[in-house]
Amino acid sequence: MGNDTQRWNELAAQIAVDSIRATTAAGSGHPTSSMSCAHLLAVLFSDHLRFDVKDPAYRGNDRFVLSKGHAAPALYAVLKAAGAFDDDMLMSLRADGSPLQGHPAPLTEFPWVDVATGSLGQGLAVGLGMALAMQLDGSDANVWVMLGDSEMAEGSVWEAMDATAYHGVANLTAIVDLNRLGQRGPTMHGWGSDVFRDRAEAFGWSAIQVDGHDVDEVDRAYRDAVADDRPTMIVARTVKGHGVSFLADQDNWHGKPVPTDRLDAAVAELGGLRDLRITPPSPPDLHTSPVEHDAMHERPTYDRPVATRRAFGDALAWLAGTYPDVVVLDGEVGNSTHTEEAQKVAPERFFQMFIAEQCMVGVQTGLQALGKTAFAASFGAFLTRAADQIRMAAISRADLRLCGSHAGVSIGEDGPSQMAVEDLAMFRALNGSTVLYPADGASTVALVEQMARIGGGSYIRTTREATPVLYGATETLTVGGSKTLASTDHDDVTLVGAGITLHQCLAAHDILGAEGISARVLDCYSVKPIDAAALRRAMGDTGAIVVVEDHRVEGGLGDAVLDTLAASGPLHGRVIKLGVTEMPGSATPERLRAWAGIDAASVAARVREALAG
Amino acid sequence: MGNDTQRWNELAAQIAVDSIRATTAAGSGHPTSSMSCAHLLAVLFSDHLRFDVKDPAYRGNDRFVLSKGHAAPALYAVLKAAGAFDDDMLMSLRADGSPLQGHPAPLTEFPWVDVATGSLGQGLAVGLGMALAMQLDGSDANVWVMLGDSEMAEGSVWEAMDATAYHGVANLTAIVDLNRLGQRGPTMHGWGSDVFRDRAEAFGWSAIQVDGHDVDEVDRAYRDAVADDRPTMIVARTVKGHGVSFLADQDNWHGKPVPTDRLDAAVAELGGLRDLRITPPSPPDLHTSPVEHDAMHERPTYDRPVATRRAFGDALAWLAGTYPDVVVLDGEVGNSTHTEEAQKVAPERFFQMFIAEQCMVGVQTGLQALGKTAFAASFGAFLTRAADQIRMAAISRADLRLCGSHAGVSIGEDGPSQMAVEDLAMFRALNGSTVLYPADGASTVALVEQMARIGGGSYIRTTREATPVLYGATETLTVGGSKTLASTDHDDVTLVGAGITLHQCLAAHDILGAEGISARVLDCYSVKPIDAAALRRAMGDTGAIVVVEDHRVEGGLGDAVLDTLAASGPLHGRVIKLGVTEMPGSATPERLRAWAGIDAASVAARVREALAG
Repeated sequence: MGNDTQRWNELAAQIAVDSIRATTAAGSGHPTSSMSCAHLLAVLFSDHLRFDVKDPAYRGNDRFVLSKGHAAPALYAVLKAAGAFDDDMLMSLRADGSPLQGHPAPLTEFPWVDVATGSLGQGLAVGLGMALAMQLDGSDANVWVMLGDSEMAEGSVWEAMDATAYHGVANLTAIVDLNRLGQRGPTMHGWGSDVFRDRAEAFGWSAIQVDGHDVDEVDRAYRDAVADDRPTMIVARTVKGHGVSFLADQDNWHGKPVPTDRLDAAVAELGGLRDLRITPPSPPDLHTSPVEHDAMHERPTYDRPVATRRAFGDALAWLAGTYPDVVVLDGEVGNSTHTEEAQKVAPERFFQMFIAEQCMVGVQTGLQALGKTAFAASFGAFLTRAADQIRMAAISRADLRLCGSHAGVSIGEDGPSQMAVEDLAMFRALNGSTVLYPADGASTVALVEQMARIGGGSYIRTTREATPVLYGATETLTVGGSKTLASTDHDDVTLVGAGITLHQCLAAHDILGAEGISARVLDCYSVKPIDAAALRRAMGDTGAIVVVEDHRVEGGLGDAVLDTLAASGPLHGRVIKLGVTEMPGSATPERLRAWAGIDAASVAARVREALAG
Repeated sequence: MGNDTQRWNELAAQIAVDSIRATTAAGSGHPTSSMSCAHLLAVLFSDHLRFDVKDPAYRGNDRFVLSKGHAAPALYAVLKAAGAFDDDMLMSLRADGSPLQGHPAPLTEFPWVDVATGSLGQGLAVGLGMALAMQLDGSDANVWVMLGDSEMAEGSVWEAMDATAYHGVANLTAIVDLNRLGQRGPTMHGWGSDVFRDRAEAFGWSAIQVDGHDVDEVDRAYRDAVADDRPTMIVARTVKGHGVSFLADQDNWHGKPVPTDRLDAAVAELGGLRDLRITPPSPPDLHTSPVEHDAMHERPTYDRPVATRRAFGDALAWLAGTYPDVVVLDGEVGNSTHTEEAQKVAPERFFQMFIAEQCMVGVQTGLQALGKTAFAASFGAFLTRAADQIRMAAISRADLRLCGSHAGVSIGEDGPSQMAVEDLAMFRALNGSTVLYPADGASTVALVEQMARIGGGSYIRTTREATPVLYGATETLTVGGSKTLASTDHDDVTLVGAGITLHQCLAAHDILGAEGISARVLDCYSVKPIDAAALRRAMGDTGAIVVVEDHRVEGGLGDAVLDTLAASGPLHGRVIKLGVTEMPGSATPERLRAWAGIDAASVAARVREALAG
């Protein structure tokens, strides 16, 4: 047994022991899932993952993503060995206030992970995004993603496999910890590693099968993976709970710590406590050349009706032409969302992700982790496909910039499968999110410009149809603000719209005005944060607010208005929410808005009814 | 050229012509995507798909799912040829009120499709659900699913491939219409049909490659697929816009009708109008044997604290043991959601879907389409993975019965990736949905019992921790109702809780009571529909309502309460919403509830503050 062999095996034993100690101390966690990958991590962090533990943000570092996030104890144990933190910190696992959460999450005080994991099947797409960022930067760094075998059933893994090969990404290696046992029994394919080899090859990858506890085999596989000019999947047959007789390959130990009274026996079987330290290999130099760049692109302006989806594309082209860190992702609908405008300007920073929205958002999360200002767009309806990835991006504190086009029943004839009518509810509910819904070209450009600077998840909702000009190119729209488009000192009611419905509110204002009813009209383009002051003032001044939205009545603009009014103190007055309450079919946009009761005539009718009542 | 050949080719030409005519009349739609699959459909519906067009609901029918829903015109055209409806109806495509929507959707007046399609990559899992239902029924029927090539990038397709082979389903055939062109240019793999053959085989399927316009080859492939004892993928190389020179294999024709002035030329190239009629083969006899069944299972009751997730499992076991059409699906967390209790009782009606939530919900949609009462469960957080499938199920008018366990920050140490805190927002926003959140064992059993009978999508949210007994086994809980657990004729405030927070509200009631503050306590176990009358009464009686939820403040119970109060007329009083407003970490459930401000002490403090202000 060579020196390296012994060194790696000792470190693996330490990782296993520390995973057991920390989870037993916490009273919960996943020691056995950590033990199966202990050797894989020991070899990787000792001799292959090139990174500076003192400067984990350094862009030249190799990156590691633990897609099987429940093996967090093993990751924390190897980070401790690498000097990231001490044993006391390790033993704070899962405790209140500890940055060592049950599943890894990046925190200011815990910079050694880049993204949150724990919802399975998401790490590979994130790794692909990182690998693409490295390529854009001219970096020689590599990305390593460790997956569990249970998560290989997630389609998102195969989306990322497909996209990685398509984009010719060779600096990404997937390590599959094939430990045969899932949460409640055997996985679908058990130790059938040929299955994964065949699939990897069919998806354009190289595949290497190893015994995941044979450190020399593992080391060779890592070397071969880096040398390969294709992405490589290393399928490692492993044993869950490896190294402790009463845990190894046993059912009913998933997510269970070793009981206190068996702790000593488990640690003893692994050879006792160790305090090995490692220094991972140094990262490659980052010799990025300044990007050739001519910022000739001008801010788009409009003097006639334009679809906000088109204005989004124009704004994106302007930003991509102006800022070299802007990257644009398309879900094979770039001629509908108009991301294709950005593709024309910066084709090298435009990635076609095809119809694989989960992968698109995962890649976006990876790109932003390495400092890219990444925008992605699809139909708003189809972003629901990536709801879990978007949720996890919030836990990653990711700066996710998303656009959903074809909002509401206003898309017309294509029918309900293509209509985003639940998207505001999804994005509003996310921690720290910003939700925007402009009504004309200029306001779209102004808000997209701000999205490029906003931290956290931001979502802009765009409309299929062209809408009239409301604002000049120099109009200032702030996130959290609103615009009052009609107002007197004797308004009878306030109409609140955003996007397409704002134009219906303006038309209703005219209808009502002709009848002697004075309506204030607010453009609530910032759905979250919402303009509490303007709404409170409107409620005080007019005593009645009608909110009109091309979205389900649940969870969208109407709920946001009610929420902010309720948060301001006692409620006094009327709030009427108009939105989609039934299942639409196919028809013209005008017909569908009338059907939903969100067109100007319906708004005016509800105002009359309310004022009469 | 044989008689059959000519017959099929003529029908294919009619399908192409009718697809063009209908979309030109509509002024929108996807003729070219319909033309690529015209021959595939002509052969299938003429001689392979065995169904009674007069009785499309007959359970013995073969089933067809058009996963590439945008080719709806071709499906409608072949259904017209089969006598489902006349040409006038066909020409109503996409018109207001027509059941022939832009993408297929099942409607009472349009029973020839079973599920809605149009969000890509979803049909195969639905087909798997149908195939499993047929197997349970002892039916000899087959399922045919037609996919487009763009949607092969969706991971959900590969989830379904994996699960189909795993479950040994041979009565399912996938037909891939490989027409090379997506919405905005070439698909990822173009006409590289070997890619899909290799992947299909690596996923345990048989694969057959054909020229999709050679009807004899197609016919042979269909015969071979049915004879095969494995599921078969037929990879058909086709031409988008086939048969019309200015459309065939041309860019920029996706989703565009032929202009009126080129209609005649296009129709002429296809040989003009036809009025062929076909009679599809008769369906196989349905010789289901009565299910052997001993309904020995008793309704579960509890006289001590139990986790509602456990009560859900017990109730499911009771229902599965009592009703032979109950089917249960698990996303590899059955020992957490407790679906494993149902597995013990009815293992033949329990399907392990592994960690592939999109596939699980698609299969569920297919099962219910064939009359099964299908329940599925996972962690509530992970049901977001299937958000788009759940959205499409609503458009399918599917009776989807879902349980999300591990609700809220109350799961504790596992951390935010495992916490459902946006799930109520997602389910509330769905058309026709029912959202339930019980607080104890008996109410869980009562609500699960009702879910088995509720139409549309229903969601029950369960809690990880055991909660005390609130109700006796005979307590009646109606959907849309609530329970008042504490009330006087001089209440100062109303506390509204559900699930875990109801217990915090009860404890706050006691704290406040000791201080002379009388709090009414409402169990709002029915989040949607919500008990408007009880809430209105509470507002009138107490003038202040505090809603406490272990969920984000956006889109959940608090918004539901405000929504229903606003819908009842002018608002007068105070509504305070307590819920999750920041990103949680790992800690004990008690600590996290205190951190979120939703524990009894926080509730009491907010009440004091509100009453003082």
